[in-house]
Parts: sequence; C-alpha cells; structure tokens
Amino acid sequence: MNKYKELNPSLRTIMTPGPVEVDPRVLRAMSFPILGQFDPEFTMLMNETMEMLRDVFQTSNEWSFPVDGTSRSGIEAVLVSIIQPGDKVLVPIFGRFGHLLVEIAQRSGAEVVFMETEWGSVFDPQIVIEAIHTHKPDIVALVHGETSTGQMQPLAEIGKMCRQLDILFVVDAVATIGGVPVKTDAWHIDAVIGGTQKCISVPSGMAPITYNQRIETKLRSRKQIERGLRDPASLDHEPSLVPVRSNYFDLSQIQDYWSSARLNHHTEATSMLYGLHEGLRILLQEGLEDRFARHELNEKALVQGIKAMGLSLYGDEDSKLPCVTCINIPAGMDGETVRNKLLQDFGIEIASSFGPLKGKIWRIGTMGYSCNRKNVLHVLGALEAVLIHEGHKLPAGEAVQAALSVYAESSKEEVSC
Amino acid sequence: MNKYKELNPSLRTIMTPGPVEVDPRVLRAMSFPILGQFDPEFTMLMNETMEMLRDVFQTSNEWSFPVDGTSRSGIEAVLVSIIQPGDKVLVPIFGRFGHLLVEIAQRSGAEVVFMETEWGSVFDPQIVIEAIHTHKPDIVALVHGETSTGQMQPLAEIGKMCRQLDILFVVDAVATIGGVPVKTDAWHIDAVIGGTQKCISVPSGMAPITYNQRIETKLRSRKQIERGLRDPASLDHEPSLVPVRSNYFDLSQIQDYWSSARLNHHTEATSMLYGLHEGLRILLQEGLEDRFARHELNEKALVQGIKAMGLSLYGDEDSKLPCVTCINIPAGMDGETVRNKLLQDFGIEIASSFGPLKGKIWRIGTMGYSCNRKNVLHVLGALEAVLIHEGHKLPAGEAVQAALSVYAESSKEEVSC
Repeated sequence: MNKYKELNPSLRTIMTPGPVEVDPRVLRAMSFPILGQFDPEFTMLMNETMEMLRDVFQTSNEWSFPVDGTSRSGIEAVLVSIIQPGDKVLVPIFGRFGHLLVEIAQRSGAEVVFMETEWGSVFDPQIVIEAIHTHKPDIVALVHGETSTGQMQPLAEIGKMCRQLDILFVVDAVATIGGVPVKTDAWHIDAVIGGTQKCISVPSGMAPITYNQRIETKLRSRKQIERGLRDPASLDHEPSLVPVRSNYFDLSQIQDYWSSARLNHHTEATSMLYGLHEGLRILLQEGLEDRFARHELNEKALVQGIKAMGLSLYGDEDSKLPCVTCINIPAGMDGETVRNKLLQDFGIEIASSFGPLKGKIWRIGTMGYSCNRKNVLHVLGALEAVLIHEGHKLPAGEAVQAALSVYAESSKEEVSC
Repeated sequence: MNKYKELNPSLRTIMTPGPVEVDPRVLRAMSFPILGQFDPEFTMLMNETMEMLRDVFQTSNEWSFPVDGTSRSGIEAVLVSIIQPGDKVLVPIFGRFGHLLVEIAQRSGAEVVFMETEWGSVFDPQIVIEAIHTHKPDIVALVHGETSTGQMQPLAEIGKMCRQLDILFVVDAVATIGGVPVKTDAWHIDAVIGGTQKCISVPSGMAPITYNQRIETKLRSRKQIERGLRDPASLDHEPSLVPVRSNYFDLSQIQDYWSSARLNHHTEATSMLYGLHEGLRILLQEGLEDRFARHELNEKALVQGIKAMGLSLYGDEDSKLPCVTCINIPAGMDGETVRNKLLQDFGIEIASSFGPLKGKIWRIGTMGYSCNRKNVLHVLGALEAVLIHEGHKLPAGEAVQAALSVYAESSKEEVSC
C-alpha cells in the first residue's frame, strides 16, 4: 500500500498574516513522545503554560489557557460561555473579523447591535463610547488587529468606559498577541483571545485565552457538571440556570479541567501543548519589549521597501497594524498571477484578502518567526522581480536598498545608545 | 529567562484507553516545517487525508475529514449541525459517553429521550428498535465502543431500522475506529465520529468524521455563508432558515473549506494534519484486517494473563470492547496506589474509570501503536509485581506465561495456515 507518498513538504518563506513559519525548536518539541493527560509530568506542563500565558497577555488573571481548536474556537468559547440568549452585544466592525464576531455572537443567541466604519480605518474610541451609551449593551466585542485590512483599533479608552458601566469587554487579539502590546489588565479587557499561528509562531490548532474574575462570575452562574461525571443519584437533575449552549466550549468545564481538580473534559492535545509550551518559552526568552521592537523594525523596512518600489499602502497609516502590511495592487495587474509566481518561482507565500478587498490588495505579514531581515529582503526582491516580469514599470533595485537603509540606521541607533 | 525548563518528557508505556503511544513516524511528520493552508502542496495533503479516511470508515461518502479539536469536538460538530431546536433525539446509554451524547444534544437544543441499560452490558438491538418505534425520534445517537465500561454495542440492526424509518443514525466510534471494524455504509450509519488518540494513534487534537448525502441534505437546508465572506451588497440579509448554533462547528461551512471551493473558515491545523496523514498511511499500510487481528490477539493475551493472575473482568464478556479490558479492583486494594506505583516504578500508565465506576475498576487499553506484545507482557508482569508488593495473594508468574502461550498458539496457527 504505497499509494500515498511520504510527507515531504517544500520549505517556504511564509509572509502571510498567518499561519507563519514555525521555529525549529517548536517543531522539535512537537515530535517528542507523548505523555498521558493526567501524568504529573504533563499536568506540570499545563500549569507552566498557564503561567507563561499570563505574562504574554500582561495580566494577573488566574485563568489563561488554550482552547483546543483553531483561533476562532477561542472566540466562540468565550462568547458562547458568557452570552445568555437575549444578551445584547455591541460589535464595532472595521473588517472581516468584526463580521465573524457578529456571526458567532448571533449564533450564540445574542441580540447583536453592530456599527461599521469604512474598511481601511478604525474607530475613534469616542464614537464607540457614544454607541455604548446609546445601546447599553451587556457585552462589547471588538477586534484588536484586523488582518483583513491591516488596521489596529486603540482599546484603552473603550475598556475603561466598559468597566465603569459594568459591561463585559471581549477582545479578539488573535493577530496581535506576541507581536504587538496587548495589555489585558491595563486596558480593562475582561476576556482576550489570542492565536498561535501568527506572532506566537506555533502551528494552528490551539487558541490561548485569558479572562478575569468578572467573566468567571458569569461562568459560575451557568455552571453544570457534565452528565456522566455527576453523582449518579442526581442524574435526572437538570439545573434551572440557562446552560451554556455548547459542551466543548463551556469554559466553566474547561476551567475545571485546567484547575487542580482536573475534572475530565476533553483529552488535552498533547503535541500541540508541547509546541505552545516551547513557543511561549522562546517568546519570553526574547522578551516582550525586544519582540515588539523586532516587529516594528521589520515592518518599517518592509514599508520603506514597498514605497521605494512605487507601490502604495492600503488603509490609514496612523492606525496601521504593525505586523500586517496591505498593498494596493497596481491597476491592470492580476494579483493572483503575482502571488502564484512568488510561490512557484521564489517559494514565497503572501496573501490576498476577503470580501470587498478580494483582488484589490495584497497582504504581507511580518509575524513571529517569519518576521526577520532575511525574509523582508527576500520578499521585496522577489516582488520587484515578478512585477517587472509582468510588465510593471518601477525603479529597479530601490526597494531592497531602502530596506537595507532602515536596518543600517537601526544598527547605528543601537550602537549610539 | 530560563525559569521554564526545556521539554524533556519521560518515555511511558501508555496502556490506557487513550491517549496512547504515537508511532515515531507520526511524531516525525509533525516536526516537518509547515505549509500555508492554501498552498497547493497542503491542499493535496487535505485531499489525500479525505481519501484515506474513507477507507478507514469503510464508506463511499464524499465527506470524510477531521474537525480541528479533540474527539468530542467532532461529536458536537455533527450533532449541532443536524439538530434543529426541538428535534427529538433518542440516546441509548450504556456508560459515560452515552451521557455525553445526551449532554451535547440537549445543549444543541434537542428534545432528548434517553434510555439506560446497566453499565457493563449493552442493549439487545431489539430493545432499542422498540424504543425507536415508541418515541419516533428524528435522530438516534449511539456510542459504539464505551471506554468507560469496556463494552461494544452491535449497530447493524439498529442502523437498518433507522434507515427504513428515515431516521438519522449518528455513531460515536471514537474508541473503535482503526482497531475494530466500523462499517459505516454496511451498517447504515449516517454520520460517524472517530478519534485520533486511540486506535489511530495520532496525538489528540483532531476528530475525523464522515457523513453521507442524507446528512448533507440537512446541512444544505441550514446553510449560511459566513458574514464577511458574503457579497457586500447583501450583508444585511439574514436567511430565514434556522441557522446552526455554532460557527466553528457548522459542517456546511467546514465542508466548503474542505471542498475545491476552499472557502475560508478556520486555519487548518497544519502539524496535526501532517500527523493524521502519516497515521492513516501507517494504518492502511498495515491493512484494516491485519490491524483488527493484531488488536484481537493482544486483547486475548492480556485477558488470559489477567485471568491467570486470579483477577476478574468487569462487564459482560460477550459484548466486550476488544481494545479496552476492564478489571475489577480486588477487595481491600486501593486502585490509585496501584496505578501510581505502576507509573512511578514501571513507567506504565493504566486508567481508572468515571462516575459510579470510580475506584471500582482499572481499565487497560490495547490500542493502536500501544497494542503490542512487548507492552502486554510488560503490563502483566508489572501489575503482578505491584499487587504482590501491596500484599495481594496471587499465583506468581502465571500471568506472563498465559499471555506467552496465547502468542505461541497464534504463531503455530499462522505457520499451519
């Protein structure tokens, strides 16, 4: 039976807004033999992962753990666990992933009020605060970094107002966690969802989340011990509370599994946890501030290179997401032809976008392990070559030189410091 | 920052009913550099995985793919996608995981009718068929192999009757897939959920499922394109159908992602897919029949060894689940002390059980890569030694000899064939 060949994936330079390249140390960790889920060695790794996530989320929250699923599983776990049918949720939308928050909240039974600003920009926080006063929602759900448009929403003022008005504030930080500051406590965010496959640079398949006491109080009020784990004498007992509409995503049950009680729920995804544990170690060894500075520097080099090539950026530069750069596809150029050539000839992957932006922009990520000088220079040189090959006129050679100047300038600054 | 040590897991002999040991070839596959989710090399791996899953599920269904989450994520995806609030679901329960089906169906909005038989046995199919006639459910959901009690439910007659009456038949085959025959088409099962971390021996984190045209028809009737991917002109349009209560688990959307349309949903868990792809290759290289025979042989050796030690099996032997052996803990013996000694002194993990069986039985798995002669002999010798050490009287040395006799007998049969 040799119908299916052995795995033999090509080495790619992955410059999309995720998934991005994975540190070989993480891949090695994922290849280690597994432990049972209740093996003391394994539960110690679970506890260490919770500790490290607290640092990454910049929080003192007790609960910081991964949900076993891709990033949106974390979003759904948070929303379905706190939304009681009929709860009012306000979602300010500035890209595709705002729409996803609406969709998940609606499917969880919420009455959703949404507001939308033009894609390519973000909200003035005062506009959101006004909407909060008008609609008096139970929950505000907001995207931090919109990879679809390359924009980043300021959160601090909105968080402060939500706390004052006793509204729960939920933030999708899938694109920003580990690459851009996400200050859970300082910004008064009640629950934050991160992603692994972007700036943390662990393969997709887990969604790290954190939430505070305010969320936990809501969870406890809806708590149900799983059937089959309850005292058999009380099997027919049905609690009077409105139960969470999901078993898999019921954070009150998942929390019991991550607590010292270790109440069985799912079977923790061992190798993914190994990968996340190692990815977080690498992240904290680099240090949050150094890591954010590295993301800024490579973004700057990329942006200067793109501009030197004569291409224009999509979206408001004042609110640009540092780890995603959106580029207007030049008139008359087929975006997919360029992307295919980059992949086939240069082994580089960049992204297109969604919905109204499909075919209009390219998106280049500078995230996590992929966010380095070699990759930025390689993508600039290759993009220039493909554009010239496709008949686009541009000042040859300028892009890479512009990026090199940024790096040279930064080295001087470091020396003079 | 060296607060957290490098990963260095001990090598264990994992003889629980899952997760079990992983083939080094699978672990190696998981350590390969990742590809982007829409890279043609990656989508080819997705397609091959679907093909191989069809063989493992013994089906001609078009749809056979993994849900990105642990096993119960697959159960929830199937149930929440087909249950419209108010649908009647019949769940015959013969252990903990039957209760889980009830819990998930209820949380999905179903009116659940359940029946329970004594743990340690299964249902006479006629009893279930009578209940089907009485309750006229829309859906019957049933566990195939109950790891909590080590019992296996015959499914063929129940499936046939469901098909006749146009009832959807959903089976949880998490514990049996890849180790025991699961005949999706022959048994008229409309949707089957498998597990990776048991007889397929891939780490936990994916749930392979398959479903037929009957299920797909139901999915299509509830289909909603995700907000943010729809035509912007129709963004305010809300379909009149009852939408699936989950975005993450909406199989109509996940199916679009696995189809040639590749409509973006989640970001496929790359390294888990690498592992599953390799695990399925290994499984099909061994061949289903040879693999089932290997599971039977090692079960027989384990059972003969346990009996030779003077221990008794829990549950009805006629309906015993071949890949899980439940053993009554001898009177006066503390089950957890024995388990801890096995782990600490011999590096062997066996399991306890849940709810009413907690502290009453041990459970030993013979699943997938863990299901081999060396492991069976090791666990028998170690269990005997720990029991003697704890003061239990038993005929020393008999257990391993009984198992060796089973293996010797089987070699003779092979030679004479």
